[in-house]
Amino acid sequence: MIIIFKKDADQNEIQRLIEDFKKKDIKIHFSQGENTTIMGLVGDTTALDINSIKAIPIVEDVRRVQEPYKKANRKFHEMDTVIDVGSGFRIGGGHFCVIAGPCSVENMEQMDIITSLIKKSGAQCLRGGAYKPRTSPYAFQGLMEQGIDYLIDCKNKYGTPVVTEIMDVSDIKYFDDVDVIQVGARNMQNFRLLKELGLLKKPILLKRGLANTIEELLMSAEYIMAGGNDQVILCERGIRTFETMTRNTLDISAIPVIKKQSHLPVVVDPSHASGAAWLVQPLAKAAVAAGADGLMIEVHNDPPHALSDGAQSLTPENFDSLMAEIKKYVDLEGKTFG
Amino acid sequence: MIIIFKKDADQNEIQRLIEDFKKKDIKIHFSQGENTTIMGLVGDTTALDINSIKAIPIVEDVRRVQEPYKKANRKFHEMDTVIDVGSGFRIGGGHFCVIAGPCSVENMEQMDIITSLIKKSGAQCLRGGAYKPRTSPYAFQGLMEQGIDYLIDCKNKYGTPVVTEIMDVSDIKYFDDVDVIQVGARNMQNFRLLKELGLLKKPILLKRGLANTIEELLMSAEYIMAGGNDQVILCERGIRTFETMTRNTLDISAIPVIKKQSHLPVVVDPSHASGAAWLVQPLAKAAVAAGADGLMIEVHNDPPHALSDGAQSLTPENFDSLMAEIKKYVDLEGKTFG
Amino acid sequence: MIIIFKKDADQNEIQRLIEDFKKKDIKIHFSQGENTTIMGLVGDTTALDINSIKAIPIVEDVRRVQEPYKKANRKFHEMDTVIDVGSGFRIGGGHFCVIAGPCSVENMEQMDIITSLIKKSGAQCLRGGAYKPRTSPYAFQGLMEQGIDYLIDCKNKYGTPVVTEIMDVSDIKYFDDVDVIQVGARNMQNFRLLKELGLLKKPILLKRGLANTIEELLMSAEYIMAGGNDQVILCERGIRTFETMTRNTLDISAIPVIKKQSHLPVVVDPSHASGAAWLVQPLAKAAVAAGADGLMIEVHNDPPHALSDGAQSLTPENFDSLMAEIKKYVDLEGKTFG
Amino acid sequence: MIIIFKKDADQNEIQRLIEDFKKKDIKIHFSQGENTTIMGLVGDTTALDINSIKAIPIVEDVRRVQEPYKKANRKFHEMDTVIDVGSGFRIGGGHFCVIAGPCSVENMEQMDIITSLIKKSGAQCLRGGAYKPRTSPYAFQGLMEQGIDYLIDCKNKYGTPVVTEIMDVSDIKYFDDVDVIQVGARNMQNFRLLKELGLLKKPILLKRGLANTIEELLMSAEYIMAGGNDQVILCERGIRTFETMTRNTLDISAIPVIKKQSHLPVVVDPSHASGAAWLVQPLAKAAVAAGADGLMIEVHNDPPHALSDGAQSLTPENFDSLMAEIKKYVDLEGKTFG
Repeated sequence: MIIIFKKDADQNEIQRLIEDFKKKDIKIHFSQGENTTIMGLVGDTTALDINSIKAIPIVEDVRRVQEPYKKANRKFHEMDTVIDVGSGFRIGGGHFCVIAGPCSVENMEQMDIITSLIKKSGAQCLRGGAYKPRTSPYAFQGLMEQGIDYLIDCKNKYGTPVVTEIMDVSDIKYFDDVDVIQVGARNMQNFRLLKELGLLKKPILLKRGLANTIEELLMSAEYIMAGGNDQVILCERGIRTFETMTRNTLDISAIPVIKKQSHLPVVVDPSHASGAAWLVQPLAKAAVAAGADGLMIEVHNDPPHALSDGAQSLTPENFDSLMAEIKKYVDLEGKTFG
Repeated sequence: MIIIFKKDADQNEIQRLIEDFKKKDIKIHFSQGENTTIMGLVGDTTALDINSIKAIPIVEDVRRVQEPYKKANRKFHEMDTVIDVGSGFRIGGGHFCVIAGPCSVENMEQMDIITSLIKKSGAQCLRGGAYKPRTSPYAFQGLMEQGIDYLIDCKNKYGTPVVTEIMDVSDIKYFDDVDVIQVGARNMQNFRLLKELGLLKKPILLKRGLANTIEELLMSAEYIMAGGNDQVILCERGIRTFETMTRNTLDISAIPVIKKQSHLPVVVDPSHASGAAWLVQPLAKAAVAAGADGLMIEVHNDPPHALSDGAQSLTPENFDSLMAEIKKYVDLEGKTFG
Repeated sequence: MIIIFKKDADQNEIQRLIEDFKKKDIKIHFSQGENTTIMGLVGDTTALDINSIKAIPIVEDVRRVQEPYKKANRKFHEMDTVIDVGSGFRIGGGHFCVIAGPCSVENMEQMDIITSLIKKSGAQCLRGGAYKPRTSPYAFQGLMEQGIDYLIDCKNKYGTPVVTEIMDVSDIKYFDDVDVIQVGARNMQNFRLLKELGLLKKPILLKRGLANTIEELLMSAEYIMAGGNDQVILCERGIRTFETMTRNTLDISAIPVIKKQSHLPVVVDPSHASGAAWLVQPLAKAAVAAGADGLMIEVHNDPPHALSDGAQSLTPENFDSLMAEIKKYVDLEGKTFG
Repeated sequence: MIIIFKKDADQNEIQRLIEDFKKKDIKIHFSQGENTTIMGLVGDTTALDINSIKAIPIVEDVRRVQEPYKKANRKFHEMDTVIDVGSGFRIGGGHFCVIAGPCSVENMEQMDIITSLIKKSGAQCLRGGAYKPRTSPYAFQGLMEQGIDYLIDCKNKYGTPVVTEIMDVSDIKYFDDVDVIQVGARNMQNFRLLKELGLLKKPILLKRGLANTIEELLMSAEYIMAGGNDQVILCERGIRTFETMTRNTLDISAIPVIKKQSHLPVVVDPSHASGAAWLVQPLAKAAVAAGADGLMIEVHNDPPHALSDGAQSLTPENFDSLMAEIKKYVDLEGKTFG
């Protein structure tokens, strides 16, 4: 951490500050220029509150040099983390995983058809929303526990591990048989939920919020890991920008940046990023080429009658041709499915 | 709602769609151009799912014409809503309200000093965080129930209604004596929480999320109101942009835009928007001049030792001079405190 | 400037780098931690290229501590700059200036009516576009030299100094009688144009680009000032964000931030920021309250028939009532018109 | 175009408006609902000014349905445009083109080495900045005419067509032997420059501005094409968002979106988008996979001593391995180099 002092900062006050830091076992290095005085803090600064230091009258600015996350940081964990998502399938470290299924679980018949078809096309995991975060209170809110039952029935029949979203701490009890618990973009900084998930021994798929930086995503992973749960899968699903031709802007650079900063696997959700079915294939291919460890794709047997997100859902036929295309790119990257 | 069809859309399929809409009691108006066919839908379209309609193969695009919110909409409720925040203080419809206090409740001594001083300077309500959403799992997470006790003690002693943040549905039981429950920016789309708050008979202060549009803020207010709780106070606290000299970008235009679209009162939080104490006064004045119904200001007796947000906290002296300045602008706007 | 080295940076290469900097008369301070090695550079670092230093294999990151601008920097010029805009009117240092007029100069009759009316309402300067940057090649492109003639005729008749936009270096010859040359948002980083304007002895009104940071705005001012022209007026006119209810997002915080960083006067253009006439008054009041030195307002005698920007133009009656309102706020700020 | 009227809009005024439109040969379709009255305009609406219509007192809102660009629109030109960039190399319609070279032309020796090496690695075109837009007036501003001479010398020796940036209309005379003229991101809406380039018979590489939408990029292409020059190559090079770990955010979705909306070829510049050499390869691969027709890559023989943009420049060795990797992806896409 570096502290930049105001031009005429009082030397006695600077001295007092140095004593304070020494008590916290932090070493001080000092650069005195003509117009600027800089102080370098060496040691474990993760617990220091930048905002409190900025509030000190003699301080002009404070800059962090080290990343504020540890457990998610590749510097302290060089090897890629490989996560077992169930039924023998893995993600990370060369293992590629495709998670597919409808936006919302609607009924058992729909789920059965879709699961059988995505499996045939080569997907490893089944997704489907039982608890649905909807912008409008007047929209379909999900089948809840019933929806989870349908998902588990499909897993038992087809061997596809289940990924589904949790919206509230009080629902954790319904997720016992779920293989991977998803935290949605709007809950990325629901810190209470993250803490509870940190106590589980189950993979968590953590989606990046629409206005969250990569550093904040890693800090939210750190919340889960700090509780003892190391199995975190990160998901890039688009950020909010001024461009309106796509629903969100897929931040493709986030893939290599996260993989440099962290050892955790990264999946991409091109369906939510784009909001349009015809954009899913080119974005999915780009994600593989940029180094993603997996994809999350919305597939619906009848998009115009989907209870949510019809515009961005692939038909099973579209999905089958997507998988055929994707396989070539996964091969080229030297990765294997599952 | 307007549907734009693809160039060579099949007339039979268009006809089938028209029949579908008619069954839902929606009237159809039709514009046939050389290159474009447009269909206008007249009736209650709030329950229609735009994304499903977009998924219909013959549809090129769909545009909403009417706002998707009703209860929060000024079109159906022309008069300003006035909310009683406790102890006889009101907000909205010409009543101006200042909510002040520390970022975090730290101990009773601190709370007593700050409450007495902000009251003397003219604030109506006391704020203070008992449950703290912190980006880092290693940072101070709040005193929780104990913090709420301290706030209530201060209210009982000084007559200052209490505004404090809820982070999870399961904590609602601790908020019985709290006057106004705050929903933080990160929870603006925690729809489960919003639904629960809709069942209470207590004012809710709803903060705009960093990446949320004004329409989404109004939709979140609609969630609370749809449950039966009409007492929603909206709060603009800065959005995320590319500018890095301020922590967030205060969207000052949101004040007049919200007041045109909705009858609900609007407060501004210049402390979080800017992240810097020296910016609070100019932004607070601008907010009053733009039509805000209130302000939410962080005040701490010792900012450099605050357990959170020191950089943006005013000292009680700064706050006193802010209030003296603000009063002139509130007068000029023809509003009255409390 | 601070250089952060990679974990295992070779000591000999660090030593070689230190020698390089010493040759450039830059002093080095060195902080060696367990995981991080930091080097502080003290001296004139404005000429160092951050990107080249970042390209050195042993370097992990580089951070600037001092601002890269000098002439625009308040640190080296504490007093507010006051600029004479013609006809005895001034801006900055307590002098407030209102610039009003149509988006485009359309004909002499229109200009005569508008000029007489804005003058009567209390505006100091006349604005009007002769060269028009239009997004569409099929839209009205301005009257060019003829438009400037009309503006000068109005100035001669009414004593209102003229502010008008330049689009290309080759047109400078037509701006001899123009009092203040405006550089539009899209040309904020047209560096060739800025250099040419730096050679003039005439105030330049420099608008912030839609995607430009405050620091970049100050660097563009520096371009003009580096050429010898100190008379730069900065203009905040909204930045691009995800919010679509307003055309752009007025960055109200930019006013106090610029005034802290720089001694140059700042005006605000609420017409372009909002894109809607009904938003101009609340935003204009907010701008005054936040410390602006002036306003730039679009006024048209017949907005529905304006050749450009009708939606955001005030009628002369609206403008008159705006001025009556604004005067109270300018008074409260202790500033005087002209 | 669709006009939405205010709730109590006067019927006589609506009638008058309809007459106005009829005179402009525009057909009217009318939808009267309980709360909303909508009017559909059918015909050539590209010349109508949305802002003027919005300014009409009875109008609540106006929405465009048809794209405002014609010549760049795939609807009116279904086949991919293929552009000859010189020396027999083509771009678009299955022809892939790599443009490589240093950010700035520094001297002949440097240019000779780099050109020979990029050619050997398989690049078709040489890039290099002779006129340099630099944020700081104190930074290296380019060799200008001398720089163009060096580029032409390299072309003559190695057969690599030259792509270089123009900054001002007055320099066009120096670009006679340049094969492709580049318009930089900051000049994307320098409409005067676009108009002049529209009069040439030479390919123009038009970069997207940092805050510009895809529609605005296509409108700027339309400016050039409206003048008679159909040879426009579009370039995505990153947009400005809140994320700070990369210099800009590469909008990968822009590639398929542009290719759907327009017939013009699209290249991607991963060097400027990311600002970091180590990010160039994953982003380049992603661009190919998403459907780009070419790449623009910065290569420098000695990045730490580059006069500009060292941090994002590849060494010739890096570039050679990038090309080897890229070839596999270009093959997979069924495209051919040159």
